[in-house]
Amino acid sequence: MPKLKKHLVIFQPSGSRGYVEDGKTLKEASRELGVDLETICGEKTTCGKCKVRVEEGHFERMGIESRSGHLSPIGQQEKKFFDRYENQDGHRLACVAEIHGDVLVFVPEESRVGRQIVRKSATERAIEIKPAIRKYFIEMTPPTLEDPLGDWERMTGALEEGFGLTDISISFSLLKTLQQVLRESDFAVTVTVWKGREIIRIESGLVEKSYGLAVDIGTTTVAGYLCDLGTGEVVATESMMNPQVSYGEDVMARITYAMMHDDGLDKMHQTIIEGLNTIAARVSAQVELQPTDIVEVVLVGNTAMHHIMLGIDPEHIGLAPFAPTNHTSLDVKAADFGLAILPTANVHILPVEAGFVGPDNVGVLLAEEPYHQDDLLLIIDIGTNGELILGNRAELLSCSCATGPAFEGAHVQHGMRAAPGAIENIRIHPKSKEAFFKVIGHGSWSRVSSEVKAKGICGSGIIDGVAEMLRAGIIEKSGRFNKAITSKRLRSTEDGQPEYVVAWKHQTTIGQDITITQKDVRAIQLAKGAMYAGAKAMLRKLGREQPDKVILAGAFGSYIDKKRALALGLFPDCGLEDVYAVGNAAGDGARIALLNVDKREEAQRMARQVEYVELTVDPAFQKDFAEAMHFPHMTDTFPHIKQFLRASQPSTRATVPEGKTDGG
Amino acid sequence: MPKLKKHLVIFQPSGSRGYVEDGKTLKEASRELGVDLETICGEKTTCGKCKVRVEEGHFERMGIESRSGHLSPIGQQEKKFFDRYENQDGHRLACVAEIHGDVLVFVPEESRVGRQIVRKSATERAIEIKPAIRKYFIEMTPPTLEDPLGDWERMTGALEEGFGLTDISISFSLLKTLQQVLRESDFAVTVTVWKGREIIRIESGLVEKSYGLAVDIGTTTVAGYLCDLGTGEVVATESMMNPQVSYGEDVMARITYAMMHDDGLDKMHQTIIEGLNTIAARVSAQVELQPTDIVEVVLVGNTAMHHIMLGIDPEHIGLAPFAPTNHTSLDVKAADFGLAILPTANVHILPVEAGFVGPDNVGVLLAEEPYHQDDLLLIIDIGTNGELILGNRAELLSCSCATGPAFEGAHVQHGMRAAPGAIENIRIHPKSKEAFFKVIGHGSWSRVSSEVKAKGICGSGIIDGVAEMLRAGIIEKSGRFNKAITSKRLRSTEDGQPEYVVAWKHQTTIGQDITITQKDVRAIQLAKGAMYAGAKAMLRKLGREQPDKVILAGAFGSYIDKKRALALGLFPDCGLEDVYAVGNAAGDGARIALLNVDKREEAQRMARQVEYVELTVDPAFQKDFAEAMHFPHMTDTFPHIKQFLRASQPSTRATVPEGKTDGG
Repeated sequence: MPKLKKHLVIFQPSGSRGYVEDGKTLKEASRELGVDLETICGEKTTCGKCKVRVEEGHFERMGIESRSGHLSPIGQQEKKFFDRYENQDGHRLACVAEIHGDVLVFVPEESRVGRQIVRKSATERAIEIKPAIRKYFIEMTPPTLEDPLGDWERMTGALEEGFGLTDISISFSLLKTLQQVLRESDFAVTVTVWKGREIIRIESGLVEKSYGLAVDIGTTTVAGYLCDLGTGEVVATESMMNPQVSYGEDVMARITYAMMHDDGLDKMHQTIIEGLNTIAARVSAQVELQPTDIVEVVLVGNTAMHHIMLGIDPEHIGLAPFAPTNHTSLDVKAADFGLAILPTANVHILPVEAGFVGPDNVGVLLAEEPYHQDDLLLIIDIGTNGELILGNRAELLSCSCATGPAFEGAHVQHGMRAAPGAIENIRIHPKSKEAFFKVIGHGSWSRVSSEVKAKGICGSGIIDGVAEMLRAGIIEKSGRFNKAITSKRLRSTEDGQPEYVVAWKHQTTIGQDITITQKDVRAIQLAKGAMYAGAKAMLRKLGREQPDKVILAGAFGSYIDKKRALALGLFPDCGLEDVYAVGNAAGDGARIALLNVDKREEAQRMARQVEYVELTVDPAFQKDFAEAMHFPHMTDTFPHIKQFLRASQPSTRATVPEGKTDGG
Repeated sequence: MPKLKKHLVIFQPSGSRGYVEDGKTLKEASRELGVDLETICGEKTTCGKCKVRVEEGHFERMGIESRSGHLSPIGQQEKKFFDRYENQDGHRLACVAEIHGDVLVFVPEESRVGRQIVRKSATERAIEIKPAIRKYFIEMTPPTLEDPLGDWERMTGALEEGFGLTDISISFSLLKTLQQVLRESDFAVTVTVWKGREIIRIESGLVEKSYGLAVDIGTTTVAGYLCDLGTGEVVATESMMNPQVSYGEDVMARITYAMMHDDGLDKMHQTIIEGLNTIAARVSAQVELQPTDIVEVVLVGNTAMHHIMLGIDPEHIGLAPFAPTNHTSLDVKAADFGLAILPTANVHILPVEAGFVGPDNVGVLLAEEPYHQDDLLLIIDIGTNGELILGNRAELLSCSCATGPAFEGAHVQHGMRAAPGAIENIRIHPKSKEAFFKVIGHGSWSRVSSEVKAKGICGSGIIDGVAEMLRAGIIEKSGRFNKAITSKRLRSTEDGQPEYVVAWKHQTTIGQDITITQKDVRAIQLAKGAMYAGAKAMLRKLGREQPDKVILAGAFGSYIDKKRALALGLFPDCGLEDVYAVGNAAGDGARIALLNVDKREEAQRMARQVEYVELTVDPAFQKDFAEAMHFPHMTDTFPHIKQFLRASQPSTRATVPEGKTDGG
């Protein structure tokens, strides 16, 4: 046997190199050298996914020459896949270009398997695209009397021959359609394979795109993100009020509803399934797809939302010892789950950490990855319920604290959701005790424009207001109104409790003054006290005084004023430059798990690794809680906001901007 | 560390022996020595399944002494599991009896895992009991605030700790019920695990028995066998007419029905599902169980029945090239399949060999195991369609021949099903041409008792009648009536074809003579000619003249007279002692696959290994067929029935018994 001629092939940007036999294709070379090159059609010059570029004239200094001429000539069929620019620039399809000399080949981003997209967050982070599904285009010869092999064996044979796939299964419902789809498509189909083992979709001809849906089911809001599973891009977003709110505003109310009504669970379950179907229909419609084009779903939510959406009674997560039905992540077929998308699509539900720390918190973990950090992170996910994570590479704790809905503007005299007309910023002159405010939907401060009219105060407005009242001395560290101060804005309600007027009747659209009452301050104290005590319990467990960084997750975290939140002691003292707001980290985590199947394993592992701290059995908790009710704290020191709280020198002008600013 | 004392432990009847540390239990010893001992409760003295007997006073000659006293004393709790006899006879529970001296232990049949049951057939054969499911009794500690682990993790933990089971899953529908069943049973449940990987049932407390259903879906008859999955015993049997007969009597008629009616497939599918549900309900009721006690099902049927019961269009198995949708075996959840049994039960459908050789034939393969024989077996499964297997250890062929329903008494002038009143045996005096017959439901011959009244002729009766007509010279080798013979029993029908009177009007319940016509003889010729030509094609492929053994499967095969079947040339010449009737081998095969999960792998393997011979593309087939139409054959010799066909010496007395015989 004559020795075969070999040529040097180098792939960029990976730098993989090796000697490859003359006549092999670039795709074959890529396999030999371990370079992942995209292909759907199985090297049949049909999909055009394996585009590469030959870099000419390189390493001549090394005596090696790379030339387009070192490959087999380009054919008409191949040329069609390139535009004029690409044709001039040495582009080829790796599946047909044969190697006849040394070549340096550049693999463009779009031809790489495992492309990355960049997620914008506190620290930018890249997500590797590795979805649970992959598409394969296969062409089969139809059966004959000499070769009457069954359709299914014909298809699995083609998948094994073309792509090396073995042990593939198919769901019963799809098997029933196999005969027809193969004959309608002349035995040329694109199959979508889930986790390399199950065919979940068969489409006629070559179809490239695949879409998945990530949904964060909050107690109050449901947000869905439709993603291109090839590029990772979010192609459509929809959010809606959680339709379960009519059965109760918070988690405990809904659990109670399920306990008190025989059909309570069933009703709430149906309601959220309908909600999810509405989201699926709307995001699909936005980009002119059908809901059945959604081939994979990832869901997160707190443990109660998790149980209810699965149709599992939430009773026992509402009662001590708060044991959930399951911790592990789940994969459920869309048809079994009741989702009106592709029936064979997989619905992945992230795991549960504990009775009150659900898949949404696991989503936060995935998004923020404290377990990959050296710094000790305190991650606060502020929603109707507060979940806290404290940890780093070495240790990982979580806890849940009953903050109540005060941070969301509920159970507050003039509280409202963060919607147009809500006061979101408040400033109080330390000397005059005069108030100025800004409302959502209007860029100016009330002292600048008389057109700024308020309807109520949202969560971030309350934080601002109470912090400014503290700074101006209107309330004391204990939260009590200072009776020594006199101002026309300070007065008593009908039932005798003190209140502070933020907006006068003429500045509102509700025909009455908007105030912050003693009770409102108490609600904030209870909420922040619980949260702080939770952080404290975890810090004590790790023998630490304070975290290195504080991450505020949740939409609310994005809008509060970090300095004023710290002034109230929402979290332990910390440099303001080390406090980050990251938005809907739970939703980000759901998206990450949708786009990268390995992250689901990571989620499963981390959810079991994180140690849940049950505050109700912590003997120090009551004392911690009582001390943390003070602003910012009864005993702990807050050097980073000492200057701010001193409130004597700085003019209001310094803190209250004159002009328009961005709302939000 | 002091060296631990060890004792000799011998287990009978396996003979496994070894030295085991002092203080270990017999169950632990059994594990160390590789002896499979039954246990459901995980060594908690709850199930009493691990009964063993200590053999006293053995091998004293060897200086070893086995004594009950060499075990820890028996406790009250343990004693409860034994009757008085057992208590005197050295019985113990292996899970609690600790070893303190040498012992010889006998493991009774019922305590062994992998017990065997004996199947009665041509050659007796044992089936090892190894069902797809196994039960485990687990007790868990309820959750507390200090240990709030989820229910599912609590359960999988107990299964791992008690039985070493890992990677267990649970279906979504069952997960939803977990919370409730655990609390209702005080966290003590018996779980049924499918294939060591999926929990399919959770029952309160300790429940030992499990049941499975094997069903053979014939074109005409559906037969179900309810089996105790622990003992292998058939505890109830039910059969019914296939309710699809109203859509067509044979396979082609049903395929045509599906092609001609938009809702044809759907109707036939629903009909057979309802039929299966009726069978499941009836067998359960027979032994006072619920259909939901059925935890596993195995189904066989021909390829058309297979497709229709799965809801797959049978069109393409009725049209060349006869490609089925799938060859591979299937596992479908009962709920998805539409069966009203345990919703999570698995329904296993044996694989398909070819377009016309279905799972029923794979059942025959499993039951007869030609692939384990040195002899070359010809296995003929005679039903509405005829399927043939020819093979042994070295080679394995199958083919399908369109015999038509003549062998089942259909398309025959006075044909009827094998039911009371059907003529099942006929004898004709070679000289006088007089006929005598026997009917199903009456033990006497018509010449002995005038009370023997006939309604028609069933399949085995036709074979008898035509063979006797051949022997008496009434018909020629070509099948034509011999016009040279005169007898009052020989006459012409209204349309001019000859016929032979088997029963005179006064011997019938239908008010007219019962005859065998020239057309009837032709129908038998066509049927047997196709079958013989099929056998011949396969023999030629293997270069053989004749098989070593002929196995007649199917209920019909059990009733036909082997000598007369051979005389007609239903199969190649063969010693009559080498012809076996094995009854419903397809149903036996279904039962084997139900009781032993390894046999499903074997079925899957053999179904792909068997080479299907497509007769329609065999160039010699038409000639083979034409030659095989003759009785017994145009050219092949039949030395084994030469004597019988000579029909001169023997008196009728020798072949027609005088007294009563068992009806067949």
